[in-house]
Amino acid sequence: MASALEALVAKAVAIRDESCAKVEPPLGPLPDPLPLNVTSIPAMVLTAEECYITESDPIVITEKIARGELSAVQVTKAFLRRAALAQKLLNCVTELLWDRSIARATELDEYYKKTGKTVGPFHGLPISSKEHFSVKDRYVNASFVAWVNNKVSQDAHVIQVMENLGAILFARSTQPQTIMHVETETILYGTSVNPYNRNLSCGGSTGGEGALLGLNATPLGMGTDIGGSARWPAASNGRYGMRPTANRIPMRGLVGPNGGAESISGAIGPLAQSRRTMEYFFKYIIGSKPWISEPGLLAVPWRESPLTPGKLKIGILWSDGVVKPLPPVARALKIVVDALKRGVPGWDIEIIDWEAKDHAAAWRLTSELYYTDGGERVLDLLASVGEEQLPLTKWILTDNPYVKKQDIHSLWDLHMRRDAYRAMYAEYWNESGKLDDHPADVIICPAAPGVACLHGTAKYWAYTSQWNLLDYPGAVFPVTTVDQALDTPEVGYEPMNEQDKFFYELYSPEKYADAPVNLQVVGRRFDDDVVLQAMKIIENALGRDS
Amino acid sequence: MASALEALVAKAVAIRDESCAKVEPPLGPLPDPLPLNVTSIPAMVLTAEECYITESDPIVITEKIARGELSAVQVTKAFLRRAALAQKLLNCVTELLWDRSIARATELDEYYKKTGKTVGPFHGLPISSKEHFSVKDRYVNASFVAWVNNKVSQDAHVIQVMENLGAILFARSTQPQTIMHVETETILYGTSVNPYNRNLSCGGSTGGEGALLGLNATPLGMGTDIGGSARWPAASNGRYGMRPTANRIPMRGLVGPNGGAESISGAIGPLAQSRRTMEYFFKYIIGSKPWISEPGLLAVPWRESPLTPGKLKIGILWSDGVVKPLPPVARALKIVVDALKRGVPGWDIEIIDWEAKDHAAAWRLTSELYYTDGGERVLDLLASVGEEQLPLTKWILTDNPYVKKQDIHSLWDLHMRRDAYRAMYAEYWNESGKLDDHPADVIICPAAPGVACLHGTAKYWAYTSQWNLLDYPGAVFPVTTVDQALDTPEVGYEPMNEQDKFFYELYSPEKYADAPVNLQVVGRRFDDDVVLQAMKIIENALGRDS
Repeated sequence: MASALEALVAKAVAIRDESCAKVEPPLGPLPDPLPLNVTSIPAMVLTAEECYITESDPIVITEKIARGELSAVQVTKAFLRRAALAQKLLNCVTELLWDRSIARATELDEYYKKTGKTVGPFHGLPISSKEHFSVKDRYVNASFVAWVNNKVSQDAHVIQVMENLGAILFARSTQPQTIMHVETETILYGTSVNPYNRNLSCGGSTGGEGALLGLNATPLGMGTDIGGSARWPAASNGRYGMRPTANRIPMRGLVGPNGGAESISGAIGPLAQSRRTMEYFFKYIIGSKPWISEPGLLAVPWRESPLTPGKLKIGILWSDGVVKPLPPVARALKIVVDALKRGVPGWDIEIIDWEAKDHAAAWRLTSELYYTDGGERVLDLLASVGEEQLPLTKWILTDNPYVKKQDIHSLWDLHMRRDAYRAMYAEYWNESGKLDDHPADVIICPAAPGVACLHGTAKYWAYTSQWNLLDYPGAVFPVTTVDQALDTPEVGYEPMNEQDKFFYELYSPEKYADAPVNLQVVGRRFDDDVVLQAMKIIENALGRDS
Repeated sequence: MASALEALVAKAVAIRDESCAKVEPPLGPLPDPLPLNVTSIPAMVLTAEECYITESDPIVITEKIARGELSAVQVTKAFLRRAALAQKLLNCVTELLWDRSIARATELDEYYKKTGKTVGPFHGLPISSKEHFSVKDRYVNASFVAWVNNKVSQDAHVIQVMENLGAILFARSTQPQTIMHVETETILYGTSVNPYNRNLSCGGSTGGEGALLGLNATPLGMGTDIGGSARWPAASNGRYGMRPTANRIPMRGLVGPNGGAESISGAIGPLAQSRRTMEYFFKYIIGSKPWISEPGLLAVPWRESPLTPGKLKIGILWSDGVVKPLPPVARALKIVVDALKRGVPGWDIEIIDWEAKDHAAAWRLTSELYYTDGGERVLDLLASVGEEQLPLTKWILTDNPYVKKQDIHSLWDLHMRRDAYRAMYAEYWNESGKLDDHPADVIICPAAPGVACLHGTAKYWAYTSQWNLLDYPGAVFPVTTVDQALDTPEVGYEPMNEQDKFFYELYSPEKYADAPVNLQVVGRRFDDDVVLQAMKIIENALGRDS
């Protein structure tokens, strides 16, 4: 068995390496030894033009292409080279799509030259996706060694839609074993690391996209999120990421072992260099009415500026009552609240404390909903080629006390408990408007107990999974970075429980040097547009054009 | 056991009878013997004013109340008396709500007197619902003898919303055992019959509402539909009924044994005296944003006139390829097609033939999805008090070869087969626009193989359940009535299969004397508003103001 497994691993690695080797011109040598923080390396290895392009806001890139100031080929080559560099530094790519992306970019440039027009709002913008999105005529292994030879014949629907809008798929990226860690380690590709500090994880499960973003090696990555998988890696790398309400963005063509399981819904979400890029992602995909060809999607239109200037009520979840946010995160919350209290023109902002409502129970329920077959399909697939379970797979699956194989009636009961929790939370949210008939518009909360985590320690997702259970949209944005002077450990803190203790004892700021600190904005179901508008106002409060 | 069961039945019947006895003034004697067609009886038993009120369009009633020309109490009393008469003639009521509805009507009249205003668009309109909708402080048995003592403490959410909009709940009506026949017979209340011909069924499962409508004893009834249960009884009684896309209308507070089962979704739909009444039902309920308090609902807005004058493409499903529509239904299709071909001002109508696409497979899949626990919960509940299975319960459940108890993996596989069928049908629908980039706007098809059926013969629902599987909205409207001269049996027809043979051999027009003939308009998922607008255009083609 071992050698069959090794052969499969070798094949996947060879595909990756051959694809990266196509990049022209080849990359020059890297500094040796590498620093922990590699974010300054691109400036040493890439051309000034490549750095200029790849460090621009994605929407600015499309505007320049639309004005003829940049070509799609030029932009695509810049990102291909930067992604190849990211692979060398961070081990975050599973495949670069040189031939496909250059061919498409050439086609777009020719169309533009001939007509003077763009094919759509993303004309010429390179985009990347997590490996388990289907890509025409490519292998899709979904991180399973057993699926290394699984070739697919069509692009995932969301890739089709984005390419119809002018985007160019240029890279595919790493994700963890079973795609159910919020870090990124597999038997196939090893561990992906964080560009700000290679001792830290780039997050997961859309970790490769997170690392690419952190090194500015992609303008826009596409991930999935059933417990934090788009938000956690975006947050770990100081960028933007969102888990929208389920079934708004096309889902057809994701490869995974649990097809037909519907107890908790995953969603595709963007990881991006700017808030505006996420907004465009939703606005134009939803504007294309993808439900016409994918009948599981919801015909909920995207609203431009759903919040009317005037009162804006924001709840602050300082802690979920299970794991207390660590000093950098607590400080980020204060930075944002102080900024909001100083005010934003046009908005009458009211800040309220948002108490956690049974978030511990929510986590138990969520992890029970993840694997209603007790994880059998996943475990069988691993076992079929002798692929060993990595520690974080054991943590969420075989060692998770809430995972069990359901029968039909226990499954129905589980759904009723889930729905009762959702109903309770909806009522709780409505209560925030009891006195003024204006319930909270959004909540601001941590994206995780801490910042990017030490490898192997991401054992608490409930600051993100909480909103998956409720099917509420959540989006993360950068606030600050770990400050060695300000983010000292809380002296004399008495942990609330074992999980809290684990994170408290692990923490000291020097371990997390240079790590970005993000926060999360959460809205009610279908208020995806509200979340992104509120984030704009919050970023304005922080002095940023958003 | 038998006497415990009898006591429970007696209790349910006593509740019904006592509630009907409250009606004032008491009803006078009925003709003896009763004719088969009892639609002329109300004019003999009720006052001219009561007849005038109850035979008005529901929207006209609300307009008159809003102008002070009628009072809510006057209207409510008229419908209470007519519903009490319907109970005597058709056995279709489980409870009249005299005290509650008169109290509410009085309150509304006082509000109007004081302010000159209405509380909402349904101000003063009496409405009724199927028994398994929760009603505050009343018993809800969901047709199970075992649940006769099940008292609930809150109104169903949709009742709350409708009452907030000004409506008055005044009656509750019969439904079949297990609420899974498209006729209406229970151990508790016996058999409900059709006002046009008491030898025929009023349909089901929202059969009591169908019968009330057919006798003009309710302006607007609320039903549920997971296989045709709102449309079939509306069609059997020559009225309007609709099954909207799931999760648009509030569902909280329906009582049934299969909570947490999500493989196929039921939906609440209106049964009404006019198309416009259904439109108002959706427009105002959805306009109230019920998803704010019931988080399972979809934030899909209602569109006024989503179809733009110009091209309108209508597919005609002449037969589903399994059971051929009987002569009155085939004639109704021709009537409508001929009318549409004559044209409607403002619309360029194109009629295309719509071929059935594996509708037999769809029915197998649908009936497998109904009872993923093999019907155990239902059967246990029946057995708990020794309630015997009625023949149509056996037909859909214990004798149904597709019903089986699933395990988690077979359930997932079933969901994938369902989703594959949905994806196939979406693509098929899109193909109807291949040549002109204008796919069909709606389909017109039968609501059933025939008209209101002889008691115990409703053994084919697939003209309605087809659209439940796809989660497409479908709405029925009246076209004609059975014509003894025109609707003669097709001579020499060779049935396609056993089911087809059953309906073909059963048919002769004299058995179905006076039965209304309805048809169905079907649209794509979320095109509920398109369906109702298309129905308006179709009714205009038939020379009706709609």
